Amino acid sequence: MIVDPWTVKGDIDYNKLINEFGTNKITEDIIKKIETHTGEIHPLIKRRIFFSHRDLDLILNEYEKGKEFALYTGRGPSGHTHLGHLIPWILTQHLQEKFNVELYFMMTDDEKFLHNPNLGLEEAMTYSYENALDVLACGFDIKKTHIFSDIEYAKTLYKIAVQIAKNVTYSTTKGVFGFSESTNIGMTFFPAMQAAPAFLPSILKGENINCLIPAAIDQDPYWRGIAREVAPKLGYPKPAQIHSKFLPDLGKSGKMSSSDPENAIFTTDTPEDAAKKVMKSFTGGRTTIKEQKEKGGNPDICPVYDYYYFIMENDDSKVKEVYEDCKSGSLLCGDCKSTLAVKVKGFLVEHQKKREKAKNHVDKVFLRD
Amino acid sequence: MIVDPWTVKGDIDYNKLINEFGTNKITEDIIKKIETHTGEIHPLIKRRIFFSHRDLDLILNEYEKGKEFALYTGRGPSGHTHLGHLIPWILTQHLQEKFNVELYFMMTDDEKFLHNPNLGLEEAMTYSYENALDVLACGFDIKKTHIFSDIEYAKTLYKIAVQIAKNVTYSTTKGVFGFSESTNIGMTFFPAMQAAPAFLPSILKGENINCLIPAAIDQDPYWRGIAREVAPKLGYPKPAQIHSKFLPDLGKSGKMSSSDPENAIFTTDTPEDAAKKVMKSFTGGRTTIKEQKEKGGNPDICPVYDYYYFIMENDDSKVKEVYEDCKSGSLLCGDCKSTLAVKVKGFLVEHQKKREKAKNHVDKVFLRD
Repeated sequence: MIVDPWTVKGDIDYNKLINEFGTNKITEDIIKKIETHTGEIHPLIKRRIFFSHRDLDLILNEYEKGKEFALYTGRGPSGHTHLGHLIPWILTQHLQEKFNVELYFMMTDDEKFLHNPNLGLEEAMTYSYENALDVLACGFDIKKTHIFSDIEYAKTLYKIAVQIAKNVTYSTTKGVFGFSESTNIGMTFFPAMQAAPAFLPSILKGENINCLIPAAIDQDPYWRGIAREVAPKLGYPKPAQIHSKFLPDLGKSGKMSSSDPENAIFTTDTPEDAAKKVMKSFTGGRTTIKEQKEKGGNPDICPVYDYYYFIMENDDSKVKEVYEDCKSGSLLCGDCKSTLAVKVKGFLVEHQKKREKAKNHVDKVFLRD
Repeated sequence: MIVDPWTVKGDIDYNKLINEFGTNKITEDIIKKIETHTGEIHPLIKRRIFFSHRDLDLILNEYEKGKEFALYTGRGPSGHTHLGHLIPWILTQHLQEKFNVELYFMMTDDEKFLHNPNLGLEEAMTYSYENALDVLACGFDIKKTHIFSDIEYAKTLYKIAVQIAKNVTYSTTKGVFGFSESTNIGMTFFPAMQAAPAFLPSILKGENINCLIPAAIDQDPYWRGIAREVAPKLGYPKPAQIHSKFLPDLGKSGKMSSSDPENAIFTTDTPEDAAKKVMKSFTGGRTTIKEQKEKGGNPDICPVYDYYYFIMENDDSKVKEVYEDCKSGSLLCGDCKSTLAVKVKGFLVEHQKKREKAKNHVDKVFLRD
């Protein structure tokens, strides 16, 4: 198992990550606490797609005492958005709506350019814009949403980043991120850039604002190793986190990845193409229909089931039905995929409508120096 | 002997630096070449205070063919300007005037903040402004002079710096600058920031512009190890350099340094205080007047003589007179210091007048994003 900001590989043991990273499980207690504010529990939390947190309880306790918080999340714009990217954004939108808070959304075009030998800087910046359309399509409140590209917002970010960087040695980044002598100096500096927005709400408002970061667990080193370590030195609150699991790709295993486009569903795919990808998906089914009917399928290793569970079916009873009907052999993979394909098509049609509309106001939500 | 951007120590063997850094001596041939354009030879060149160069001949050859160049130099704003800082600026002003070219002047407030544990960021930024007054007091053409603070101009600079950084490993900076595991990640990134303005004229003009950097030799690693290495990869011309020696302080030895304020003359010192510092200077004189008259003094180890030679006396015959009269014993240290003190006072009175006037237009010369 490798889980770091650039590589997610192997069978991911999320409980092990909680231990390794020193985070806390999302428990029934904290879910109840959230519910007192949101009035409902989002499926992504109920189903433990968001499975881990750090200081979410503190954020909520202080919120109860009247202390506001801001949300911070982001995206590495190295290509078009796929469904896996949407998971944290969907919950972030829900939290923004329920808590009525500001969101700061970082497009790390610098990092994607620095990390990827084949990606040009202007190309990464173009994806910042393209991906921002998908962010807005998730339904964020444009009055309370501030998207920024690291390159376009560098004047503000660099000033914060140097203050962070002064407190972070190369040796620390080596330990936290596994950087080596052959890592370029843009990458070794970048953790200071990624940590900066955790303090941005406090800086922009001129008073300390708590910060909650919903993001996939692979981003945790930035918060654990940099932002939270440096926060007290600079006089800001330590940012809190809520961590999500990875949406698998449609292949045999692994996190959905842009580098394997046949097994990923992009928001820019035509609904028909996306449906075709679903129909070609790997499943937990048996080799023959006869065997499947007799022995049942295995939803636990099946990305098709995962799609229902992660993102495509909010009704718990229907998810349960898929699971049980698969297990019992009464639901065959072809039918299961067909149903999912219809859902994915519907989702994309809706998303793409909203994405198109977002073009009218995307410029307004971008922070620029 | 240690000569790097942060430490200049020991007896400096400038010929050895030429060999170590792989630069070229300023020869009579290149001086003649300069003279065809300037009509005169500046004392700082004639006296080999600027003693070394890299590709100055290429810059001049291309200039003769009609290809313009830009000047780039800078300052680390960790305190007030002293006379040692002025040396490269005086020649830069001369070159700007004679060649009628643009100057890009960088205030590395980021680096000074990152390097100095006791310097605050706002403090460094304040010195950027204060030091800029001294730059302008040197007589630069304000229409062709562009000063910028790294922090204030970070949007433009960071975008260039990440392109440089992508081509520079931590290992390279370790070799070039002696960075170690305990170096902070702002410092390891900074070489990309300092190299960036070498390409700024090309970027701002939209066509490749040659760049000539007049600066003290301690800054050479940035050009040799970073800017010139990366230039061809990014499609820009390699920047050329002309290197100066260090104005000694008024103590027993060493480069004039802000960290030893009693032995440095600041442009913000009152002329009277500066004169007092001169009168307390170490000299190459003998222990008694009698001995001095008999055996003569030693101008070769005398900072008072160096002040005449570097900056305070443009008339070669008068400098020669000081040297010979010291050697012969006819000029005593007290008199020699008194004459220098008058010159320093006069210089400061004039400089401070121009510095005061610069407050009226300093805002106009600052580049901001």
